[in-house]
Amino acid sequence: MSRSLPSRSELGREILARAAALARHSDSATNYTRTYLTPAHQAAARDIARWMREAGMEVRVDAVGSVIGRYAANDAGARTLLMGSHFDSVRNGGRYDGVLGILVPIACVAELNARGERLPCAIEVAAFADEEGARFQTSFLASRAMLGRLDPAVLERRDAQGVALRDAMIVAGLDPARIAEAAIDTSRLGAYVEVHIEQGPVLLDEGHALGVVTSIAGGTRHTLTVRGESGHAGTVPMPRRHDALAAAAEMVLAIEKRCAAGGSLVGTVGMLEVKDGTGNVIPGEVRFSADIRAGDDATREAAEADAFAACESIAKRRGVTLERTRTHHVHAVPCAPWLQDALARAIEAIDAPRPRNEVRRLPSGAGHDAMILAEATEVGMLFVRCGAGGVSHNPAETVDAEDAGAAAQALLTLLALLAKKGSGSFLARAEKGT
Amino acid sequence: MSRSLPSRSELGREILARAAALARHSDSATNYTRTYLTPAHQAAARDIARWMREAGMEVRVDAVGSVIGRYAANDAGARTLLMGSHFDSVRNGGRYDGVLGILVPIACVAELNARGERLPCAIEVAAFADEEGARFQTSFLASRAMLGRLDPAVLERRDAQGVALRDAMIVAGLDPARIAEAAIDTSRLGAYVEVHIEQGPVLLDEGHALGVVTSIAGGTRHTLTVRGESGHAGTVPMPRRHDALAAAAEMVLAIEKRCAAGGSLVGTVGMLEVKDGTGNVIPGEVRFSADIRAGDDATREAAEADAFAACESIAKRRGVTLERTRTHHVHAVPCAPWLQDALARAIEAIDAPRPRNEVRRLPSGAGHDAMILAEATEVGMLFVRCGAGGVSHNPAETVDAEDAGAAAQALLTLLALLAKKGSGSFLARAEKGT
Repeated sequence: MSRSLPSRSELGREILARAAALARHSDSATNYTRTYLTPAHQAAARDIARWMREAGMEVRVDAVGSVIGRYAANDAGARTLLMGSHFDSVRNGGRYDGVLGILVPIACVAELNARGERLPCAIEVAAFADEEGARFQTSFLASRAMLGRLDPAVLERRDAQGVALRDAMIVAGLDPARIAEAAIDTSRLGAYVEVHIEQGPVLLDEGHALGVVTSIAGGTRHTLTVRGESGHAGTVPMPRRHDALAAAAEMVLAIEKRCAAGGSLVGTVGMLEVKDGTGNVIPGEVRFSADIRAGDDATREAAEADAFAACESIAKRRGVTLERTRTHHVHAVPCAPWLQDALARAIEAIDAPRPRNEVRRLPSGAGHDAMILAEATEVGMLFVRCGAGGVSHNPAETVDAEDAGAAAQALLTLLALLAKKGSGSFLARAEKGT
Repeated sequence: MSRSLPSRSELGREILARAAALARHSDSATNYTRTYLTPAHQAAARDIARWMREAGMEVRVDAVGSVIGRYAANDAGARTLLMGSHFDSVRNGGRYDGVLGILVPIACVAELNARGERLPCAIEVAAFADEEGARFQTSFLASRAMLGRLDPAVLERRDAQGVALRDAMIVAGLDPARIAEAAIDTSRLGAYVEVHIEQGPVLLDEGHALGVVTSIAGGTRHTLTVRGESGHAGTVPMPRRHDALAAAAEMVLAIEKRCAAGGSLVGTVGMLEVKDGTGNVIPGEVRFSADIRAGDDATREAAEADAFAACESIAKRRGVTLERTRTHHVHAVPCAPWLQDALARAIEAIDAPRPRNEVRRLPSGAGHDAMILAEATEVGMLFVRCGAGGVSHNPAETVDAEDAGAAAQALLTLLALLAKKGSGSFLARAEKGT
């Protein structure tokens, strides 16, 4: 890997052209939607497999439909660096979400292959078949299956048309009885690296093409129900009211305020419903959600405790009752420090936009396959700047070709660092026998 | 009218027994719902007509189905004191709302008739066929028709089953072509007095059986739409957000705060909807209602100006847009001072619960037929304490028999005052030729 890096524009243009080609495989005639096991999804899998083969990889399709390309090491007994992301999408989504984390590694392996270079570790690129789970309301199905942690109960889930996941697999040529065979031998994994668009505005706002993910935020979701006293909007004097909506409004602001304390902490009330809400009736019952996330669990837990204590005291003061149910909980997943450092060195080594010569490190507020892989190996993530104000899960999602090219350059640089067995990597530790 | 008043308990028990009898005429087998021109509504009209006849009144049914009883004056040329309220209900309503204002005057006329007394004015009791308008989404249909101010376009309205109001009239034996004939000669009206349950908790909280209405609140209703920027609940840092729900929550509290300034002013956000609201998406658009009322228009207008200016500045500070549409507007209707005073003297004259020997005067936050009659004559309203925490438009609505009896005693006392042609009444002024 002594040769100079291929041109960023050239790499970027090819990656974006492939993303555009994949985007043509859509379940919908009018927007970009590619859900698990549909004809469009299978067509995308075929394109990905072809590009992997063209990059010199051996390709297999696993038991749940993920496409996995392998580029052997220079040493048959070496461990594997896994890279990848997902090729399903949300409904009416953006064409880079997931796909970028498949196309960038393929471009890197193609470059190694063109040079005839092998690394001291095998490289595998996983195109995960289902992460968003828009069709069967699953989540991380394919990466869970890869770790042998897929609950077979999901086979009974049905899509909006009533088709069971089990039957969709059969139609797609997969055997639902064999999903356990998707499990890999995780003891062979050295690390997992995922390239992903940021899906937020931080890199864009600050002028960074790339960013190093410090951790994938943990989060909880809660449903809160406020019960006050409904009444006639004209006849109940203000001091006599126990307005469930006014109470909920104060709680929304209390959650917002506490979660604006800084850092990676965010808090969102995305859903709020007034029961039997109508213009001339004082609301008697309001239900709302609270989604609280942070890059580390302690920060999130402290914010939750404060925010919900504030909600309780608002309820008490206003003479309403408050019920809260936690509906979702995931712990934060830290990215391996050595991988963060190696990715930062890779970014420093290439000439991508980087204000004040700094490397931006930031948490990921969204969940990624890396959260699942972290159960089996060390993970790292490289964020690519998201255009159009940072929107994602939206047709307006964009990535600049130069930024996609920069991501490929950075990933090639990371591979070169690994080849040197430096940076405290699993290879360095293997050398030392740790 | 020199004889002592009939017993409060006796009067009250009969009024409540009749309210219970009317409540059996319901559109629903499971709750109290009586809407315009249904079989239950017509059965109620027949009961009311019978009670009016038994009280010595001549009864007519007008062109829209209102039942009007007349008890002639001792002077053929005398003007008319009109009393009344409505006998339709909201869906799943309370049995005293409206009905009390029909049954109390009938009980009073029955007492005059038993004594063989006539007054220097005719008495008419109007049982208005439609005020709530729950079936055809009308409002004050019957009292508007009485003033010749009913828009014939309402005939085309359809109920939830698709039945046109016009056809419902024909089925009920009314001629939709003749609704104009419901109009009375308003020059013969001396005044209008409406007895009504308070529909709020003020008299109950303060221990008054009866209250004198100072004015019927005017009000406006508005729809406000906040547009911010939707986004991923995990990836958009707090300072970068333009959360439409957080902005709306702040506006809800600003409206509540300004409308809590005291007096008759009230403000309610009864409806609030988050467009496409879901737990993990920052709300991009929120629509909510604001209902603001006060006993006088100047108070309400000042509150509206301040509250909406506060909303505008919240929108500006948060970088969201705010659109506001006024969907409803009625002016406040003051009750005639001489009628307020006469009702207060009547309350003073009877021995009903009245803390600190005061007569409670209060605005009506709800609309009543008196608002419409005020376009043609002077109006007064007597409020009766509402039990069960002041709830109305609800099956829990209650009135104490003693309080209903007190209302009848007070109304009889008012009639005695009028018979003396005192109190600055229309009769006193007719004497003086004013």
